[in-house]
Amino acid sequence: MKIKGFTAAAVAAGIRYQDRLDLGLIVSAPPAVTAGVFTTNQVKAAPVVLDMDRLKQGRAQAILVNSGCANACTGENGMEAALLSSKLLSTKLEIEDEMVLVSSTGVIGERLNVTAIQSSMDKLVDGLSETAFEDVAQAIMTTDTVSKTVFQTVTIDDHEIQFMGMAKGAGMIMPNMATMLSFVLTDAQISFPELQQSLRNANAKTFNRITIDGDTSTNDMVIIMANGTASNDWIDEENPKGQQLFQDTLEEVLKELALKIVSDGEGATKSITIRVCGARGENEAELMARTVANSSLVKTAFFGEDANWGRIIAAMGRSGVRFNPERVDIAFGDVLLVKNGLSLGKDVEARATEVLKQKNIALCIDLKDGIGCEEIYTCDFSLDYVKINADYRT
Amino acid sequence: MKIKGFTAAAVAAGIRYQDRLDLGLIVSAPPAVTAGVFTTNQVKAAPVVLDMDRLKQGRAQAILVNSGCANACTGENGMEAALLSSKLLSTKLEIEDEMVLVSSTGVIGERLNVTAIQSSMDKLVDGLSETAFEDVAQAIMTTDTVSKTVFQTVTIDDHEIQFMGMAKGAGMIMPNMATMLSFVLTDAQISFPELQQSLRNANAKTFNRITIDGDTSTNDMVIIMANGTASNDWIDEENPKGQQLFQDTLEEVLKELALKIVSDGEGATKSITIRVCGARGENEAELMARTVANSSLVKTAFFGEDANWGRIIAAMGRSGVRFNPERVDIAFGDVLLVKNGLSLGKDVEARATEVLKQKNIALCIDLKDGIGCEEIYTCDFSLDYVKINADYRT
Repeated sequence: MKIKGFTAAAVAAGIRYQDRLDLGLIVSAPPAVTAGVFTTNQVKAAPVVLDMDRLKQGRAQAILVNSGCANACTGENGMEAALLSSKLLSTKLEIEDEMVLVSSTGVIGERLNVTAIQSSMDKLVDGLSETAFEDVAQAIMTTDTVSKTVFQTVTIDDHEIQFMGMAKGAGMIMPNMATMLSFVLTDAQISFPELQQSLRNANAKTFNRITIDGDTSTNDMVIIMANGTASNDWIDEENPKGQQLFQDTLEEVLKELALKIVSDGEGATKSITIRVCGARGENEAELMARTVANSSLVKTAFFGEDANWGRIIAAMGRSGVRFNPERVDIAFGDVLLVKNGLSLGKDVEARATEVLKQKNIALCIDLKDGIGCEEIYTCDFSLDYVKINADYRT
Repeated sequence: MKIKGFTAAAVAAGIRYQDRLDLGLIVSAPPAVTAGVFTTNQVKAAPVVLDMDRLKQGRAQAILVNSGCANACTGENGMEAALLSSKLLSTKLEIEDEMVLVSSTGVIGERLNVTAIQSSMDKLVDGLSETAFEDVAQAIMTTDTVSKTVFQTVTIDDHEIQFMGMAKGAGMIMPNMATMLSFVLTDAQISFPELQQSLRNANAKTFNRITIDGDTSTNDMVIIMANGTASNDWIDEENPKGQQLFQDTLEEVLKELALKIVSDGEGATKSITIRVCGARGENEAELMARTVANSSLVKTAFFGEDANWGRIIAAMGRSGVRFNPERVDIAFGDVLLVKNGLSLGKDVEARATEVLKQKNIALCIDLKDGIGCEEIYTCDFSLDYVKINADYRT
């Protein structure tokens, strides 16, 4: 997997564990138009604070990312560590320090091991290659069980534009305006306002629609770099068709990454789409879908393959959305189980149970109150989720 | 355990399972001043709807309660079943039908087996005795592992007043203005407005401060019957001292029941008090404590006995309460682990881990922003929680 004008590398720096890739680097040959969206958690990790500031210029040339340590809640030391890491990289790459973005994921509250980063910097930079993106995707994994990458192309104004995206997820996932780490690279030539707007819009429909456990991380970020090497006509406000194509493709890339995060949620055995239709507005549909998606009782019932719609309607009832319980329809896949608030009986329930044995499940709720419709993507809640999170730091 | 002027009985009616107590009855010899608080879930079970209406009169004489079936989301049939159960009882007891309250807990969406109730009614009423309250507390259990009762006395105006309370809890517990089933009996002579107000106030500080899993049931209710057989001076607006004593005692009774529910939460291995101090107001303290208490990541870390304060501060950061992360102190028990947003080191963490091995744990958060302080009571999130809820209906 290659993408024009970008190189990448990853090494095992020993930041927390030995002998696993934990430090990654992405470099754009020319300075790239770069936009980002970041966590809305009030507690923001040092790299988030630094990158938010640096991206005001809308340009970047390198992303340095580590796993094993979130570099969050580490006070002044955290920002010093982020700045020092950046400086080590910019010196070695001979680029402006302001053109470096840093990113961290892992345990909160522990100091970043900058010595490990320093010792590995030569090897990291010397290892830059056109084919090492998959290594970076591996280096950012924490409790992820598989790395997550997407490659896509689109033709805009007779130029083939490439997109490459990577993400890590697994836990502490209920992004709000941004999600866990995701980096998207494109060779498109696009102006900064369009890039930022496209990212915001696509993110709202994708990463912001997933939830693993209702917890929002301190380190969430999605960054997109567009280095212009495709030499397409500039995508800007005078090129609405290019803009639309760019955004649609970006949304596809982010959606694919978002669904990969859900299907690899901590302990997940199933991917579940919660669709609420017939709400009075999209906001209400989203709020209700999110409440159902975050209910531990609903999620454990999915794990148990139990068509327990009572828990679903109980979660709907505490969502804050007004509706008439006696008008509600609930379906698992194409099996309508509840009609106007009442069960259609044991036979239908048996068929719904069959649907629950599948790996990908759609739960559809119709309130029949309006035309608001939204989807939230989530996973089930298994014994392994508890095992993983009871043992995470040991 | 006896209480003046009340009798009780319980039978195995076979409503869902055979050979376990599942139908309970409490009767007050004289009509009792009776108040209730009910679930705020928009989806309300038939018995909740019926009792809310009947309690407008502020009087009741009997409570008929079953487990195994919630009689929720069963449409017109649900209300018919509730009314028929009430009628069967009032006929047999020869009291006004309006003086009967009904209550149900168990699976949502299935029809109540009124035939089973009918067949058992004679045996139930004939079995009324002064000593069977513990049997009723057992009959209302679902995934509870122990029955929950409290007995307390207080002297008001030279009269000894008795209180007896019972409750069931276990799962779908984040009461909002009311909780799972709880019945409190007292021989106090008290007027209805005072009784209702005392119940509301005491409930707000007790049942409404606990959460097992963030889910609010469709069937929550707390009912208090005061039959006046203590012959104390009337507790009313002209007796503020009696009023205060009554409310304080009621609060103690409800708090003890609430803590029993938490320590018997589904799969719980630990009881945890989340105390947030130094907030700008009590509302903000409560909101933050509740967000931390409902975080799956925090709860699994407690189960894993891991002093993972990063998850705590991440949950605080998404609570919606504004605070300065660099001023936060966090303590487990009497071990201060985080001072001004920074860890006090590995040694202290080791001592905090020792605290986490205890069965009752206090987590104290100080924001240093004001004087708002509130507590929420919860439990940890264990493998057994998932096992119980993946298998509940099978």
